[in-house]
Amino acid sequence: MGQSMTDGFEQMWRDLAPLGRSAASGGYFRQPYTAVDGEVRTWFLEQCAARGLEVEADGNGNLVAWWMVRPLQGATEGADGSGPSGVLIGSHLDSVLDGGAYDGPLGVVSSLAAVDLLRERGVVPNRPIAVGAFAEEEGSRFGIACLGSRLASGSTTPAQAAGLRDREGVPLLDAMAAAGVEPSLGRAAWLDRVGCFVELHVEQGRDLVDRGVPVGLATAIWPHGRYRFDFTGEANHAGTTRMADRHDPMLTFAMTAMAAGRQAELTGQRATFGRLDVAPNGTNAIASRVTAWLDARAASEAELVRLVAEIEGQGAERADSDGTRLQVTAESVSGEVAFDAALTAELSAGLADRWGPVPAIPTMAGHDAGILAAAGVPTAMMFVRNPTGVSHSPAEYAEPADCLAGTEALADALEVLVS
Amino acid sequence: MGQSMTDGFEQMWRDLAPLGRSAASGGYFRQPYTAVDGEVRTWFLEQCAARGLEVEADGNGNLVAWWMVRPLQGATEGADGSGPSGVLIGSHLDSVLDGGAYDGPLGVVSSLAAVDLLRERGVVPNRPIAVGAFAEEEGSRFGIACLGSRLASGSTTPAQAAGLRDREGVPLLDAMAAAGVEPSLGRAAWLDRVGCFVELHVEQGRDLVDRGVPVGLATAIWPHGRYRFDFTGEANHAGTTRMADRHDPMLTFAMTAMAAGRQAELTGQRATFGRLDVAPNGTNAIASRVTAWLDARAASEAELVRLVAEIEGQGAERADSDGTRLQVTAESVSGEVAFDAALTAELSAGLADRWGPVPAIPTMAGHDAGILAAAGVPTAMMFVRNPTGVSHSPAEYAEPADCLAGTEALADALEVLVS
Repeated sequence: MGQSMTDGFEQMWRDLAPLGRSAASGGYFRQPYTAVDGEVRTWFLEQCAARGLEVEADGNGNLVAWWMVRPLQGATEGADGSGPSGVLIGSHLDSVLDGGAYDGPLGVVSSLAAVDLLRERGVVPNRPIAVGAFAEEEGSRFGIACLGSRLASGSTTPAQAAGLRDREGVPLLDAMAAAGVEPSLGRAAWLDRVGCFVELHVEQGRDLVDRGVPVGLATAIWPHGRYRFDFTGEANHAGTTRMADRHDPMLTFAMTAMAAGRQAELTGQRATFGRLDVAPNGTNAIASRVTAWLDARAASEAELVRLVAEIEGQGAERADSDGTRLQVTAESVSGEVAFDAALTAELSAGLADRWGPVPAIPTMAGHDAGILAAAGVPTAMMFVRNPTGVSHSPAEYAEPADCLAGTEALADALEVLVS
Repeated sequence: MGQSMTDGFEQMWRDLAPLGRSAASGGYFRQPYTAVDGEVRTWFLEQCAARGLEVEADGNGNLVAWWMVRPLQGATEGADGSGPSGVLIGSHLDSVLDGGAYDGPLGVVSSLAAVDLLRERGVVPNRPIAVGAFAEEEGSRFGIACLGSRLASGSTTPAQAAGLRDREGVPLLDAMAAAGVEPSLGRAAWLDRVGCFVELHVEQGRDLVDRGVPVGLATAIWPHGRYRFDFTGEANHAGTTRMADRHDPMLTFAMTAMAAGRQAELTGQRATFGRLDVAPNGTNAIASRVTAWLDARAASEAELVRLVAEIEGQGAERADSDGTRLQVTAESVSGEVAFDAALTAELSAGLADRWGPVPAIPTMAGHDAGILAAAGVPTAMMFVRNPTGVSHSPAEYAEPADCLAGTEALADALEVLVS
């Protein structure tokens, strides 16, 4: 193991650790275009500068840092003219609200450290390598997950994004400008120079623990979506209004939340209401409106459609009997993404000598890798073992030795691709 | 009907109408010690000044405006030395979040108009009359209903109140000072000059509509309380965490909310969850904590205890099976209040000539009248018909003719008391 890579990894991890960490929970609040996000971006730019990487800011909030050992023409086409040759690695630096330290940053830190390791090994890559840090991967501020990679690849249009506002009503473009990120939304130039993408990420489950291995590859991402459930009823006095006379959207929501949990459990899928907005949200008034966001995931697109339809149907039925109304709006839906089989097989074969058979597992979590894969970029993912499976939580964790193993495996994968 | 009283009433109603009204909902946001509250207080002071009433600000945010036709000694003792002689009328000017125009202001406007009407009639009261406007009756900002009258009568101590903060963490004392209301919490001097209190209020139910009469009297206030339910679980990834592995406090809350509604319906009581706070409140994370406030009311104190215990018990049982925790904290509990039977009978008899038999009905809503009654002040309440029964809602309404009838009945009641 490269000693200076190890030192570099640990130093980067220490530098990042305090940024955006809540003293109360120990969790992270790294929402895009906030002051904390500015510190995190500055940290990334400094790391790139220290390594002589050329940073490209794409106007969608994404940062892509290039290590070019040959002239730029090598970056736009393969030697045989077969397509762009750049190898993109990286992940994201933002977090969910009160999230963990690993989801996102582990992939960025490992990528920078993998560059260090290749240099220690004396590898002179015959393809350009780029380390990416994508913006608003979690959608924690503007509601659309993977917003940066969606914009860069065109799956979200600038017009759609220009209409986005955060919970306080601040438009995306204003937030970007206020943070000193010159907005210029739309398909990114760097995408035309990327021949493949390998994203390393902490596992968000216990598959690798159960298999007793530190590193895995991904097969596919489950289809998933976010759906806004607006339950509307009639505000009234909490004391004087007879129970039978009420049109209380809180009760309709409560039944719908229980139906969602039960339905997902019965079918082996996932359904979660984790975010709510209640009006007027007063103790002694029946609510007039409850807005709840459903996060739903299923093994196939047909199953996802059935799951959401079943939850909506049970909610609508209860709304009928409560005298309330339910309206469901799909805010973002991602179809199934199968990662590139040839690329994954190439990595798997290349890693086998040193790592033995590397398991390939599906994931229920969305990633920028899924967005770029859907946009036609040959893409693979690598996972690092998570001892508890916990993620999107202050308790998210990976062993330092596993993080370093992941970095080495990523460097090994790069060697396969750029040698 | 006094023409100038009618004009005065309508003018006051027009002047108040725009203050704190939401353009979006038509409902009112008149939270204490806000800019809007300042405008409302200024309006009240101007009305008192125009009538030559002497305003006493008690340092708890309450305003009590005296009409004294005889020297002050008459205000501290009855002619026979039997106790304080002042007759207090009035209500409150604050609202719930997105509330109606009538809950509170109708009692204050009617009281000022009743003073006008007595003067039109040439009545020279032999007891001082005071018009009160109580602070934070709804508890919409600092969480304790009837905070002003509780402080003035000693049922909430200054030390308890000094610890109160609003949802943004602003302490009560800072909010008062920032609003230019010099805080001096504690038992109010005016209370020693009050011999009885008659509060007029819009009905928050349909009893008077069903009986076909515009005005009623109150018998008692149901016992009621506010209870904070803290459900804590474990944040985790909404996609990757198997349903069976979750400790999701949202599901525990949902079951508890449904149990509350069902239990209240079965027993003829009231139970409402209208206010929620969720952490971290992100779409793709299972919640780590759901805090929900239960508003519960029952016909007797024993039934209230049983109702809350049953809801808590069902919630705790579900928490056990969800692997979450439930902690319940009573934030404020008010016992049953029976209004003064002798005073109510005197008013009923005095009103009968003109109004026929005036029904006496219980109410499930808390009022400042309940606080002063519990503090030993002989107290009665008058209700004005509400055609829909809706309250704590932008849709709250009373017919203008009924509002004027209520004002006349209040003036008639005053004549009974001060002649």
